[in-house]
Amino acid sequence: MIPRYSRPEMVAIWTPESKFRIWFEIEAHATEALAELGVVPKSAAKALWDWWKTNPTIDVVAIDAIEAVTKHDVIAFLTWVAENVGDEARFMHQGMTSSDVLDTCLAVQLAQATDILLADMDKLLEVLKRRAYEHKLTATIGRSHGIHAEPVTFGLKLAQAYAEFDRNRTRLLAARADIATCAISGAVGTFANIDPKVETHVAEKLGLSVEPTSTQVIPRDRHAMYFATLGVIASSIERLATEIRHLQRTEVLEAEEYFSPGQKGSSAMPHKRNPVLTENLTGLARMVRGYVTPALENVALWHERDISHSSVERYIGPDATITLDFALARLTGVIDKLLVYPERMDKNLNKMGGLVHSQRVLLALTQAGISREDAYRLVQKNAMKVWESDGELSLLELLKADAEVSAKLTKEELEEKFDLDYHLKHVDTIFDRVFGAA
Amino acid sequence: MIPRYSRPEMVAIWTPESKFRIWFEIEAHATEALAELGVVPKSAAKALWDWWKTNPTIDVVAIDAIEAVTKHDVIAFLTWVAENVGDEARFMHQGMTSSDVLDTCLAVQLAQATDILLADMDKLLEVLKRRAYEHKLTATIGRSHGIHAEPVTFGLKLAQAYAEFDRNRTRLLAARADIATCAISGAVGTFANIDPKVETHVAEKLGLSVEPTSTQVIPRDRHAMYFATLGVIASSIERLATEIRHLQRTEVLEAEEYFSPGQKGSSAMPHKRNPVLTENLTGLARMVRGYVTPALENVALWHERDISHSSVERYIGPDATITLDFALARLTGVIDKLLVYPERMDKNLNKMGGLVHSQRVLLALTQAGISREDAYRLVQKNAMKVWESDGELSLLELLKADAEVSAKLTKEELEEKFDLDYHLKHVDTIFDRVFGAA
Amino acid sequence: MIPRYSRPEMVAIWTPESKFRIWFEIEAHATEALAELGVVPKSAAKALWDWWKTNPTIDVVAIDAIEAVTKHDVIAFLTWVAENVGDEARFMHQGMTSSDVLDTCLAVQLAQATDILLADMDKLLEVLKRRAYEHKLTATIGRSHGIHAEPVTFGLKLAQAYAEFDRNRTRLLAARADIATCAISGAVGTFANIDPKVETHVAEKLGLSVEPTSTQVIPRDRHAMYFATLGVIASSIERLATEIRHLQRTEVLEAEEYFSPGQKGSSAMPHKRNPVLTENLTGLARMVRGYVTPALENVALWHERDISHSSVERYIGPDATITLDFALARLTGVIDKLLVYPERMDKNLNKMGGLVHSQRVLLALTQAGISREDAYRLVQKNAMKVWESDGELSLLELLKADAEVSAKLTKEELEEKFDLDYHLKHVDTIFDRVFGAA
Amino acid sequence: MIPRYSRPEMVAIWTPESKFRIWFEIEAHATEALAELGVVPKSAAKALWDWWKTNPTIDVVAIDAIEAVTKHDVIAFLTWVAENVGDEARFMHQGMTSSDVLDTCLAVQLAQATDILLADMDKLLEVLKRRAYEHKLTATIGRSHGIHAEPVTFGLKLAQAYAEFDRNRTRLLAARADIATCAISGAVGTFANIDPKVETHVAEKLGLSVEPTSTQVIPRDRHAMYFATLGVIASSIERLATEIRHLQRTEVLEAEEYFSPGQKGSSAMPHKRNPVLTENLTGLARMVRGYVTPALENVALWHERDISHSSVERYIGPDATITLDFALARLTGVIDKLLVYPERMDKNLNKMGGLVHSQRVLLALTQAGISREDAYRLVQKNAMKVWESDGELSLLELLKADAEVSAKLTKEELEEKFDLDYHLKHVDTIFDRVFGAA
Repeated sequence: MIPRYSRPEMVAIWTPESKFRIWFEIEAHATEALAELGVVPKSAAKALWDWWKTNPTIDVVAIDAIEAVTKHDVIAFLTWVAENVGDEARFMHQGMTSSDVLDTCLAVQLAQATDILLADMDKLLEVLKRRAYEHKLTATIGRSHGIHAEPVTFGLKLAQAYAEFDRNRTRLLAARADIATCAISGAVGTFANIDPKVETHVAEKLGLSVEPTSTQVIPRDRHAMYFATLGVIASSIERLATEIRHLQRTEVLEAEEYFSPGQKGSSAMPHKRNPVLTENLTGLARMVRGYVTPALENVALWHERDISHSSVERYIGPDATITLDFALARLTGVIDKLLVYPERMDKNLNKMGGLVHSQRVLLALTQAGISREDAYRLVQKNAMKVWESDGELSLLELLKADAEVSAKLTKEELEEKFDLDYHLKHVDTIFDRVFGAA
Repeated sequence: MIPRYSRPEMVAIWTPESKFRIWFEIEAHATEALAELGVVPKSAAKALWDWWKTNPTIDVVAIDAIEAVTKHDVIAFLTWVAENVGDEARFMHQGMTSSDVLDTCLAVQLAQATDILLADMDKLLEVLKRRAYEHKLTATIGRSHGIHAEPVTFGLKLAQAYAEFDRNRTRLLAARADIATCAISGAVGTFANIDPKVETHVAEKLGLSVEPTSTQVIPRDRHAMYFATLGVIASSIERLATEIRHLQRTEVLEAEEYFSPGQKGSSAMPHKRNPVLTENLTGLARMVRGYVTPALENVALWHERDISHSSVERYIGPDATITLDFALARLTGVIDKLLVYPERMDKNLNKMGGLVHSQRVLLALTQAGISREDAYRLVQKNAMKVWESDGELSLLELLKADAEVSAKLTKEELEEKFDLDYHLKHVDTIFDRVFGAA
Repeated sequence: MIPRYSRPEMVAIWTPESKFRIWFEIEAHATEALAELGVVPKSAAKALWDWWKTNPTIDVVAIDAIEAVTKHDVIAFLTWVAENVGDEARFMHQGMTSSDVLDTCLAVQLAQATDILLADMDKLLEVLKRRAYEHKLTATIGRSHGIHAEPVTFGLKLAQAYAEFDRNRTRLLAARADIATCAISGAVGTFANIDPKVETHVAEKLGLSVEPTSTQVIPRDRHAMYFATLGVIASSIERLATEIRHLQRTEVLEAEEYFSPGQKGSSAMPHKRNPVLTENLTGLARMVRGYVTPALENVALWHERDISHSSVERYIGPDATITLDFALARLTGVIDKLLVYPERMDKNLNKMGGLVHSQRVLLALTQAGISREDAYRLVQKNAMKVWESDGELSLLELLKADAEVSAKLTKEELEEKFDLDYHLKHVDTIFDRVFGAA
Repeated sequence: MIPRYSRPEMVAIWTPESKFRIWFEIEAHATEALAELGVVPKSAAKALWDWWKTNPTIDVVAIDAIEAVTKHDVIAFLTWVAENVGDEARFMHQGMTSSDVLDTCLAVQLAQATDILLADMDKLLEVLKRRAYEHKLTATIGRSHGIHAEPVTFGLKLAQAYAEFDRNRTRLLAARADIATCAISGAVGTFANIDPKVETHVAEKLGLSVEPTSTQVIPRDRHAMYFATLGVIASSIERLATEIRHLQRTEVLEAEEYFSPGQKGSSAMPHKRNPVLTENLTGLARMVRGYVTPALENVALWHERDISHSSVERYIGPDATITLDFALARLTGVIDKLLVYPERMDKNLNKMGGLVHSQRVLLALTQAGISREDAYRLVQKNAMKVWESDGELSLLELLKADAEVSAKLTKEELEEKFDLDYHLKHVDTIFDRVFGAA
């Protein structure tokens, strides 16, 4: 967890205090269910909740001190609670195993974290949609391989990002369902010492589903899928960040991250305005992606469980969710305040002497009866002259002057092929697909 | 693609011939739609399909020879088709871009590959279910940290594997939906030169959904999610393979891979029977997992696309699906023919002098009024003696002889705590959860 | 950085205070060299060092507050120093760029961290050597595929670990040389505004070598190699940890992590003694390995640099070195105090009815004139009977009773083949190779 | 192995024929040493070599057929050799284990592959050096964050690439030494049945060093380090490829991949000339990097070995070396024939109205007695006007007209700050560092 890449709401989920609070609730709900089943006295559950209602401070230092002796975190916690609640506390944890608490707690924490991430994505989607509509018809050059291809609109770029993050939202919902399960099944998952009804009760109280079959632990394929999903989302963040980094390049400069008063781009060069936020997002994406492999390696625990996954999750549980939360919020801010330069887009679009219309001429020549191969050769021949002139020559003029071409297409027909609006006629169709028909 | 880890049906999807056949169908379906829209003559579509009905051989060598000149695979293919079909072929590919063909073809191939993987998983699930029921009540020791914990059944282990692969099946279905989209949207995805109806037509004919918004390509977050899902499945394979490797260890030997007549375990040591299939599966899982990161790195293509993803997909498209298909089939075979040794399971279960029943005594002492901490200390003290005797001593006997214990629990009460069936009473519940109530 | 997996000495390297101290020293040394060259007044360098000699507290909060406005960390730091030192401070950073400071500082931090790691490895090597000699001739069964193969000694296992970590030490030294370079080359690495002599001076003062050619930054292939090397070391830790986890398995129990008084193995099962330290090391290894890919992705910065690597390094710089330091120390402790059970090793070695000697009989039969294939068949036939008897039968007795075998080998010859010492005769050779001749 | 990304010389190393030839040589050399030691008859070694001198065809199909029964590849091979050589062949493989053959063979193959890779790198270095000197003083803009910073030369960019690949060459040599070891140590590495002299003999004959201590296998930390090194090299390839992709962007177009006659950039757009080779290299780099993690996961084999590494190496042994060989050769070709456009570089360099000289003015103002903070503010104020004018305004003219600036610097002093040669004065120094003094 790097403070500069962390936001307080997400960090709060991962504090020791938060963890111990969830542990207590799991234990208390379980004790309640055990009391209901007659396994423990009802007074035990009541004693726990009565103490809880006093809103006791969680004494992390004291718990850690006990753990230093027992070398077992859950036992340390139970001991501390017993010291506070008194004798009735001995009925806690009846028939349960530590992982019942730990894994169910992790499920709660990941579910809470995911709810923040989902809210982050909603904000990002909202901003993407607003700015997509704002620039729905702002023409700009589409580029494949970094090379001018044909016109698109800036709104289309944002609509594509919207569609991608909308898919990611769906994936994240599925991933949430995957990890939000409750296991209270005892030492090796057989319910030998604890009735399955306890699990059902705790699951319901915590808003989790019941884990159909645990070993000692909740199976880690669930978590692997979860972190893999975060890795995909991070990669989508990198994609949009990379787009903006490209657009801000000096020679392109079609869009720019907001540059605040007082900001300095470089300690040495006062003229700099750098896309540092999106570069930062690119790095953060690498980190979140880097957590996928350890999560995958965590799946193959030995037999009913070993504890090798635990240290991994102490890192990636907080690190992946905190970093992704920060990155989503930062990306939302970048898009929200992005400076967009339509005039520059227009200027760039026209800088290649009309090359971006080459395909339409190709198709027109084919329609006029020339073979595709010959048509390609004809257009390419003239296009390469324009290319090499660095846009000084005009493709339209060269084609008009080309005897083979003008034999098939009149000047008027040729001119019509260089119409920008032709390329924008289906923008509405695409927006309807992405955002739903108006 | 490693021949020894490949099965013909999956390999067939990824041959050049298969690819070119799909390319043709995409082009022919598109030409059909274009003809319907009046953009090209109906005779063009007819000419294509008429030639196709002659079941022509795909001349891969000829196509490759053209590509050696054009350095462009789709153009090479179109040229070759034109040479065969004749003049009418010039109407093919009207307003399309290469990626319309390539990406839609990849969607078809991945969908086909996924259908094989789903069938593989169905077979694996079937075998897991059969053997789970066969050993539903075959008692065996549950192990956490590789150390004896409490009894489970071998059927439970297989039921857990079933539940995990059942989840994976659901994930794979979602991943299939993610990649099975059709894009026929032209050079930069604007439909400037091709009506969206063509896309709808081709999608329908190929059993794909329509890509809501493509750039030049289908967005790669879809493929990233797909390969990440394969990585999770591979990790689950590793988990089950690791279980079997452990069970076959000399000192454990509770189960064993089938050893065929004539098989040799070692060139040097004639006595060896090694779990080589599951070790092999462990390695294959590493490979499939290794393809996840390149797939994630493929997401952030530049602008409307660059082609860096293409080489990656030439490797991982075939390699991940072929390897996973092989691995699933191999795992199915291993489980199907797995030699299971219930007597050995029983022997191991009892080798620790009854230690596996320590928890029940702990709970009984707690119920009898001793604090959890004291009860733990009492049982641990006696358990450690048994542990250090390597199972020569009996926990039950030591407890009977322990004054502090016998003050709280009678001999009969203690003996009842060492009952195996106690641990199996909820096996039905778990089986019902996993396989559905009978 | 996870407190429970961190040690203070390594953590201290990565605090903001440490970073700012190194920044100051770089700036002051550079100013000194600039003064020597006559570019800035000598009083400027003197002013800086005079202030430094007052051992000023680094006011991290104040520096962060300035950064919140400038959004540039080095400018914030320089501003803060200027506030403290006064007017002469304006000569600091002349002709330098932020990365001159940042990257050289990272080199210092990584070099310091590496020195701790090297010391960690020296301690581990020392412990491995001591315990290897202690158990040089402690016979134990060698296992391939988890199956009994032939005898080795426990000392050999540790000698192999020693050789592996000795290689890792050499690799880490090379990796240290790779990252310990100093760059003071200005905005784009051309030395336009700063004489190369300044770089040479600072490098010498900080114990770094000179970066032959930087862009704005030190090239990231160096850091990629560094973190890849840490990933290899982590994998070696996992290997040795896995060995111990296996040896502690209930059925094997040839060695055991030290179990301290008061320790509890399980909240539910008082009888448990689990190899939790080595399982933990397995998880920590996954994390350190997980940092390799982000480090590799950091290499391809854009042009003379982009800043995407920076956020990655804020995580993995501390996390990889702190985690690896902790893991090496933990592993050293585990080996140092490892409980080794030679009697159990002996018992396990003999539990397979002499199967572990099958190869020698095979070779003797071949020497006696039987073809390798026939000899293999003969031995395998008898060995499988022993295997299936679970070690109840004796291979030696079966072979004596086998007419085909006894036709070639006398009883005495057969008996000689079952001699344990035969397997240990080259242990000295191997120890000499690993530790050097006595 | 993807044919289109493979070169025959490297592919040849990895054919079954090559593998079996190396296997034979290992066995024959070992038999020779055994004969020398008197363990087997000298006639046995002679029989093997006599047959080998007949240059026998390796019948891969026959060997595979035997393996289909034995399920063991080395036994299958030995059986086939015995069928050909006759009775004397039974002395082969005396006291050896399969891995002695397999691992030593892999060492030979990887060493051979590395020699090709080293030759590839030499060619790349040669081309980089030639073109670096060709463009030693070709001025171009240096860019940080994709934004114009200060001038560099195109030769410097190539010199930096040279230095990086020179480091990689050193690393590859170390990696070669790491994997080029020979192990002939028998079933569990104890030399119980084979004298260490055999290992020494075979190592010497094959140009390998002796593995100081093997288990059954050569330890996999060696291979992990090897593949990690390939991953670093791949990342360096990606870096240089990314540089070229950027330079070829339409708006930048300072360099361009060679575009051959007949080549087509796009099936739809005849005007396209795309950097497809360097995009392809970017993808190939992802693949080679993707092999690092499986190689790291291969280190922690169980006990004296399990075989999980084997399947991984069947993929990544060939795939990583073949892909990297192809990528290095492709990159060499790209650099060799790269079209470089100095006029465009000059044009781009000047397009920002002189902003690239902002730092020199900043420094001059500081020298003239203004505080760094004030100087920064002064220059930034004027620079932002130029930035927002898209290079229409001139920084020099604005500064001349700025009263605060002209109070400190005369027109002549200001003009001197806009001199390009100032930035190139240390190019020779850097070239000397990288290529050695002339």
